[in-house]
Amino acid sequence: MAAHYRRIADYLRGSFGSRRLEDDAPLLSPRYDAVSPPHVPGGCALTDEAMSARWALPGLKQAAREVLADPCTLAERESYARTVENFIGTVKVPVGLAGPLRVNGLNASGVFYVPLATTEAALVASYSRGAQLLTDAGGCSAVVLNEGVSRAPGFAFETLAEAALFAGWAARSFDAFAAAARETTRHGELVDLRVAVEGNHVHLVFEFLTGDASGQNMATIASDAICRYIEAHTPIPWRHWFVEGNLSGDKKATMQSLMSVRGRKVSAEVVLSRELLEDRLHTTAARMLDYWRMSVIGGVMTGSIGVQGHYANGLAAMFIACGQDAACVAEAAVGVTRFEPSGDGGLYAAVTLPNLIVGTVGGGTRLPSQRACLDIMGLAGTGKARAFAEVVAAVALAGEVSITGALAAGEFTRAHQRLARGTDVEQATR
Amino acid sequence: MAAHYRRIADYLRGSFGSRRLEDDAPLLSPRYDAVSPPHVPGGCALTDEAMSARWALPGLKQAAREVLADPCTLAERESYARTVENFIGTVKVPVGLAGPLRVNGLNASGVFYVPLATTEAALVASYSRGAQLLTDAGGCSAVVLNEGVSRAPGFAFETLAEAALFAGWAARSFDAFAAAARETTRHGELVDLRVAVEGNHVHLVFEFLTGDASGQNMATIASDAICRYIEAHTPIPWRHWFVEGNLSGDKKATMQSLMSVRGRKVSAEVVLSRELLEDRLHTTAARMLDYWRMSVIGGVMTGSIGVQGHYANGLAAMFIACGQDAACVAEAAVGVTRFEPSGDGGLYAAVTLPNLIVGTVGGGTRLPSQRACLDIMGLAGTGKARAFAEVVAAVALAGEVSITGALAAGEFTRAHQRLARGTDVEQATR
Amino acid sequence: MAAHYRRIADYLRGSFGSRRLEDDAPLLSPRYDAVSPPHVPGGCALTDEAMSARWALPGLKQAAREVLADPCTLAERESYARTVENFIGTVKVPVGLAGPLRVNGLNASGVFYVPLATTEAALVASYSRGAQLLTDAGGCSAVVLNEGVSRAPGFAFETLAEAALFAGWAARSFDAFAAAARETTRHGELVDLRVAVEGNHVHLVFEFLTGDASGQNMATIASDAICRYIEAHTPIPWRHWFVEGNLSGDKKATMQSLMSVRGRKVSAEVVLSRELLEDRLHTTAARMLDYWRMSVIGGVMTGSIGVQGHYANGLAAMFIACGQDAACVAEAAVGVTRFEPSGDGGLYAAVTLPNLIVGTVGGGTRLPSQRACLDIMGLAGTGKARAFAEVVAAVALAGEVSITGALAAGEFTRAHQRLARGTDVEQATR
Amino acid sequence: MAAHYRRIADYLRGSFGSRRLEDDAPLLSPRYDAVSPPHVPGGCALTDEAMSARWALPGLKQAAREVLADPCTLAERESYARTVENFIGTVKVPVGLAGPLRVNGLNASGVFYVPLATTEAALVASYSRGAQLLTDAGGCSAVVLNEGVSRAPGFAFETLAEAALFAGWAARSFDAFAAAARETTRHGELVDLRVAVEGNHVHLVFEFLTGDASGQNMATIASDAICRYIEAHTPIPWRHWFVEGNLSGDKKATMQSLMSVRGRKVSAEVVLSRELLEDRLHTTAARMLDYWRMSVIGGVMTGSIGVQGHYANGLAAMFIACGQDAACVAEAAVGVTRFEPSGDGGLYAAVTLPNLIVGTVGGGTRLPSQRACLDIMGLAGTGKARAFAEVVAAVALAGEVSITGALAAGEFTRAHQRLARGTDVEQATR
Repeated sequence: MAAHYRRIADYLRGSFGSRRLEDDAPLLSPRYDAVSPPHVPGGCALTDEAMSARWALPGLKQAAREVLADPCTLAERESYARTVENFIGTVKVPVGLAGPLRVNGLNASGVFYVPLATTEAALVASYSRGAQLLTDAGGCSAVVLNEGVSRAPGFAFETLAEAALFAGWAARSFDAFAAAARETTRHGELVDLRVAVEGNHVHLVFEFLTGDASGQNMATIASDAICRYIEAHTPIPWRHWFVEGNLSGDKKATMQSLMSVRGRKVSAEVVLSRELLEDRLHTTAARMLDYWRMSVIGGVMTGSIGVQGHYANGLAAMFIACGQDAACVAEAAVGVTRFEPSGDGGLYAAVTLPNLIVGTVGGGTRLPSQRACLDIMGLAGTGKARAFAEVVAAVALAGEVSITGALAAGEFTRAHQRLARGTDVEQATR
Repeated sequence: MAAHYRRIADYLRGSFGSRRLEDDAPLLSPRYDAVSPPHVPGGCALTDEAMSARWALPGLKQAAREVLADPCTLAERESYARTVENFIGTVKVPVGLAGPLRVNGLNASGVFYVPLATTEAALVASYSRGAQLLTDAGGCSAVVLNEGVSRAPGFAFETLAEAALFAGWAARSFDAFAAAARETTRHGELVDLRVAVEGNHVHLVFEFLTGDASGQNMATIASDAICRYIEAHTPIPWRHWFVEGNLSGDKKATMQSLMSVRGRKVSAEVVLSRELLEDRLHTTAARMLDYWRMSVIGGVMTGSIGVQGHYANGLAAMFIACGQDAACVAEAAVGVTRFEPSGDGGLYAAVTLPNLIVGTVGGGTRLPSQRACLDIMGLAGTGKARAFAEVVAAVALAGEVSITGALAAGEFTRAHQRLARGTDVEQATR
Repeated sequence: MAAHYRRIADYLRGSFGSRRLEDDAPLLSPRYDAVSPPHVPGGCALTDEAMSARWALPGLKQAAREVLADPCTLAERESYARTVENFIGTVKVPVGLAGPLRVNGLNASGVFYVPLATTEAALVASYSRGAQLLTDAGGCSAVVLNEGVSRAPGFAFETLAEAALFAGWAARSFDAFAAAARETTRHGELVDLRVAVEGNHVHLVFEFLTGDASGQNMATIASDAICRYIEAHTPIPWRHWFVEGNLSGDKKATMQSLMSVRGRKVSAEVVLSRELLEDRLHTTAARMLDYWRMSVIGGVMTGSIGVQGHYANGLAAMFIACGQDAACVAEAAVGVTRFEPSGDGGLYAAVTLPNLIVGTVGGGTRLPSQRACLDIMGLAGTGKARAFAEVVAAVALAGEVSITGALAAGEFTRAHQRLARGTDVEQATR
Repeated sequence: MAAHYRRIADYLRGSFGSRRLEDDAPLLSPRYDAVSPPHVPGGCALTDEAMSARWALPGLKQAAREVLADPCTLAERESYARTVENFIGTVKVPVGLAGPLRVNGLNASGVFYVPLATTEAALVASYSRGAQLLTDAGGCSAVVLNEGVSRAPGFAFETLAEAALFAGWAARSFDAFAAAARETTRHGELVDLRVAVEGNHVHLVFEFLTGDASGQNMATIASDAICRYIEAHTPIPWRHWFVEGNLSGDKKATMQSLMSVRGRKVSAEVVLSRELLEDRLHTTAARMLDYWRMSVIGGVMTGSIGVQGHYANGLAAMFIACGQDAACVAEAAVGVTRFEPSGDGGLYAAVTLPNLIVGTVGGGTRLPSQRACLDIMGLAGTGKARAFAEVVAAVALAGEVSITGALAAGEFTRAHQRLARGTDVEQATR
């Protein structure tokens, strides 16, 4: 987090102008209001009364209420139960359609029009261009290669000796742990366990299959039950324990998830012919490979987790549209994009995303507009999570091919200029 | 991405049941439809005709249209220009209010009620609990410490000698580059340049101040202009170049951004007394520190970028509510959470987020409901971006304190169980 | 690798002075000598003739020969067979003794005097101080927690479908792979296999137990044999394959090795009383913890793999003294150092090193002086590798405690000044 | 550090056989000897008496003494002053010669025969093969691109406000800091300063040029002097400070060093023709590129710092031979190897090593055999450090080309088998 001293000196000077930080320091001290500011009232309640009480808080204005708590939102109000607390309305995120996107997956098979919720100009146009390109190449292959959601309780003992004893006991108790987990869930199943000893600390990394749900709550509840079992049966009492010792990778990009799986791991690939590269992307395989080599080393030099271009754009837009946990973009937007030369001037392109925390049941997928987005693709509800994961990976591949094409052809800046400033989208989507 | 062989064998068996991958492999092959699936029509157009043409695509159903293209959305339709292409409607994300949150910042000063857009139960409750705790402690301090948005063109030469010559020339040309950038923007300013030679490749990392905008487009356009200047003046011709060589950290978590700044870098801190810890979090500073030490090592063992708990939850919810680029959650949700003992059984807690890509003008902040969310906090428009960044960091701190308290007190699982299953939120927010 | 432009401009200016890079660039061009410079003659031969032929190469001087090929070296000459090619003599690295070091390990038990080969002043003194401190605290506990050496062949297929088919087949073929490995080695055993699919690439990470040898060659040869088996039996022909796809972590620090094991994984711990901290380190547990918290975040902010102080110092010195592969310092010097408060003003300290590539048979351990160093500790030969690994971890712990004590007490600079400039070592070792 | 539960269960079972960890746990407890084991006597003294007193310690045997404290070592004894404490003799590391290696560097220019000290069979043969290949290609280009050694004191304040004030003051005090540093060293110069605020902590990263010395001690002493200056002049008193807050990257691989420079940053490159690839490496550029693409992604998937093959082998061998700090292999063996297609079936290969902590004066370079190794290359003493750094990078490049050739041609295993088992080296060096 270190910045060059001239930058810091300049920044602080520029930031404060004639003010001096010395004078402003008191601004930063704690202060106590004579009258405490009011709590947000009403908890989970979705009633008119609860909402009105919240909108009566200091600073909240009627104009804002009309926009957030519009009639259409109020009409759907009950549907927001159990997805949010202290409800005051909805924010509306515009949805654009990218496609057609042909996916030849083990689970997803067919042509999809993909809803993307975003406020960033050029994003839908770029993904749509990539999707069409994949489709014109006969579609992209996609396979869910593995899945599992982890929760990782941590246990502190007095000594390393106790920690090692506990680790050995835990490693032999998998079946009992699986049984304890089974008590808490019909859909979830403990399928793996990793054990880490670090001094007098032991971390147990439980890994669950969670059916068509994204499954973090299921994993938490099942892990908690296992810990209760451990508490009752451990031969070695602990000093203290926590249901999560920050080893699960929840809500953050980690090398651990890149190296194994978190959620669903999916690979997708396509071969683009010389003609497609020239006609659609106005470039060649050689130039695309020049870019890939530079960018993969660029990614390495910045210390990214995996190497890729902009998975986050497609993932965030699909996650918001389809009722996924948008915070999981932080962990999911990692992986590997690889280009190789293919015969006759063609290009092989593959993406691998090992950390797709996605589901088609539960959570935000129950909400009306989110479910409508899943419905557009025919991917709402039971039995659809793997197919959905394959489509997500296909979208990521479309995005990588499209942005690299734009960069390779020198069209990247122009596309953003045009779309963000309101002229037409023809060039980018053609 | 390597998985244990038994897991892979089990997974592939479970995944395919009686099917055999051998039989399914043909599913993955490219295929070409007799009639190409139709393009998404209409580009940027927001007219009735354009929307109807899109909704007429195969598979899109009337029921979905009614939910996405509801009357309230249609009434606001024009406002979505230049934020999305191929528009078909809006997705509605429920917004809950967290607060009160007292921030004693250099730029943000006062009590805030923070709109969080999420579909995850317990999130708003947990952040709201943390916000109240900070407020009862006199508020949290917060300072924007640095800012800058980068774009990093890459240039390929024949030889290392040429690359070194070019690097030297570029390093001496900063003032000319700054002048070239100035032609493209009133609000942006080139303030720094870093130069990286790697074999016969040179990366120039341009860093811009972008006023109250998040600024990525501004940085792209200005960098492109600088490259045009370079093209005209370089003493060493290149073989090829790209406006981005993947060294900017755009849309991905990187060690580079953690180590310097991308967007705004903000620290926020609070001291919690023994009484507050006991009354509100039902725990002690010693236990919070036990957790912090375990979790910081846990984070290190997973290879996360920085160490923290769940910044992504608060950031994603604020970004969606307030019209920020939600894809930037992938890069922004990194940083450092640090706890220290404070006198008399108290706890010092600080967060530092070096990669807050946020703005209060342009992009999604222009949309009605997003602007309403900014308005609730009094943070819409010019002159507010630094204050907004400080509030974001304060929210992150509230979240870290709240989740650690829940984990330390053994209440984490219960809170999620209760709120996701529909009983009341009292305990968690009390 | 990006540097600030002013630094680059300054550096290039300073570096070249009145010379200009433009003028010097031709220096960098390929050039071909009229007469090719002679090869190094003699290959593996250790004879007088071979050595004389090598010393007759251009530029090698008699004075150097007398120092490298001294009589003592020549007397032992035959012992260097199969450890080096193109032999010209030996370099002499001074060895100092650190201790006494009491280790209470599962495999190493007793008091050790540890030979450290180094040319860095203060290193032996600091480790010796730490060793004595551990001994006075009753010794340190140490446990080898896991072991395994990997080799990771990579296979390229036409398509993802083929890759997935191959991965499934390989995952089901573990027993046959183990049998193929068994043909090549008496001491090695295939104990694990991880499978990674990335697009049309498959990596198989084989993990072996290698007895008392460090085992990389054993792992290579066994993996090669497995690949021959695969070649003969695979249902899916590959396009090409390599016996190592850079997934083994050989000779480099990786998150993968930190997260699992490479070589031996060892934890060691000690509790230091308030009195020991005050008397020997002139500091307190509170100050040691202040340092630990700052340094752990410091390490995180630099993107190190694990967080620790200076494992590399002790490891390099022990590896060189004891005939280990010194290049493996690059991978082995990672891990986690953790300090915790212990009752009554004491300090708990633990180190965990997951990547100790060490052995007590084979390779450099056969050489006379290297074996003598192992003998000093009673750790040469069969049955000693685990004990050796535990002593290595104990040395690392001694070093962490000693350097942190010096930093906490403000004595770090002084100790280095005194010992590197030739005054006495009393203070540092007292 | 988490291992699969079956592995842990198996390992603990295999490790203890019929023993049970429960029975063994007492082995791990602290124990106190009735008579404390003796200290290592004599400190820095190199006298006969001091050495005899050390060799009289329990467990040290006469046979070992004869090997370590051989007559040749005793004759040179005084030369080891100020490089080691508690001296008991020397360990002899065999040295092989790799070459000829033509380097066309800015600082190193000519043909070198490089001494490599190693105990690993095949290492010298492989590097020598690579060196000859580079030479036959007209030699490799090499440029020191930047240099600087850092030391990073950390300061703790009460509040973020104080930390920010201090950071601002420090950023404006560069000239005074440089003056304070100048008091302590003739050869060193403070050339840069980076400032990092994290909550109430501030890290100052000082960067020095250190002439021909590797310079860590110089940096420490100068930083200490700056801190004394700060102590006397800071407008904001601190709570505590440490001369190193673990932000310098000393003795560990870090992303920070990869991204900037630590020691010397050097790039080296070569173009290999189709004929050379076929004749010498028995492979083609296409296959070398196949390998490079797979291995670069392999490295990324393991979370290495940079991507490369086996820099550590060449670096460790050169560092030991030439009196460098061998512990610095831990930090130095990182960087980027990049291959590109070159016209007509040729291959462009480049390495970039940003963290070469090397020197040609001071430390181990003063010792007789180490200096002899430097002399062989004509690189001992003042004015040679940059040239030495360029040769190190050239050696790294030779190693990358050679190992990749062996892997691409399927000869890797065979070469290791032959050389480690004592048959001839012809094939590998031909």
